[in-house]
Amino acid sequence: MPKRIVPCKLTAAAFAGHGQVIEKDGADSFPINNGKCIRFHDLVNIDLAGPSARPIVSLFSSKPYALPLTLRMVERHPLGSQAFYPLSRNPFLVTVCDDEDGTPVNPQAFITAPGQGVNIGRDVWHGVLTPLGEHADFIVVDRGGEGNNHQMHVFDVPYVIEPPA
Amino acid sequence: MPKRIVPCKLTAAAFAGHGQVIEKDGADSFPINNGKCIRFHDLVNIDLAGPSARPIVSLFSSKPYALPLTLRMVERHPLGSQAFYPLSRNPFLVTVCDDEDGTPVNPQAFITAPGQGVNIGRDVWHGVLTPLGEHADFIVVDRGGEGNNHQMHVFDVPYVIEPPA
Repeated sequence: MPKRIVPCKLTAAAFAGHGQVIEKDGADSFPINNGKCIRFHDLVNIDLAGPSARPIVSLFSSKPYALPLTLRMVERHPLGSQAFYPLSRNPFLVTVCDDEDGTPVNPQAFITAPGQGVNIGRDVWHGVLTPLGEHADFIVVDRGGEGNNHQMHVFDVPYVIEPPA
Repeated sequence: MPKRIVPCKLTAAAFAGHGQVIEKDGADSFPINNGKCIRFHDLVNIDLAGPSARPIVSLFSSKPYALPLTLRMVERHPLGSQAFYPLSRNPFLVTVCDDEDGTPVNPQAFITAPGQGVNIGRDVWHGVLTPLGEHADFIVVDRGGEGNNHQMHVFDVPYVIEPPA
């Protein structure tokens, strides 16, 4: 029997152990450009490891997913954080796990509000990019450079992520 | 008499001396996530100088501008590139100059198409972020760290940037 997970609303506090939420709410902000623009400043911890590490900017264009969804696999990037910001105001699902001696445990799922992105911490187990309902594009800041930056874990018993309560 | 500038469409070729266009067209791309997602990969040169340099991610929320527009001032960041990607499909104006012995010359203006962002190269003279028509939000990747990363130049005679031909 698959175990069932009910996603919560994404908040900075709930996500704190796994990365940061990219959003205006609660951010350090100040006016620039002669008052015409507000800068919500330095929102995430871009955490890149290894001597050849460099930040890279990419665009991801993903087909949508629907809930309930079967979570068979998570992955992690031991050498770099990975920031995702949506180019639409549609929600996406963010799934993260704790780590126990190299094994992902205690999966938690979050659904974003409009204007929210996430930066998934270096070495944090997470599900793949999961836009809900509609095809969606994202801008992504992650790591380039040498080294093996990808680990995968397939669950013996998959989880089912339900629609939110 | 102010000098007049007519903006062109933004293209990778036209912008090549000043930075990179962030767009899917012409990008290296490949499928990920079991074919559900296309990654348009490593689109810009994030160029950060100095021992304490680190990439930072911010959100900018700017009031709109209208053309014709008087360009009185440009700035540059000697220690870091600055990438801007819009969160709407509205156009923005990108103004850059060549440098001649520390003085900005030969201003050129570009208007973006939907889906285009820009990465302004390190030390490239440029106008401030200039969304056209409507209030607009952008995600920005630039440089944090010690050092003076800001220079400004006020033109003796301002330029006027006209609506596109």
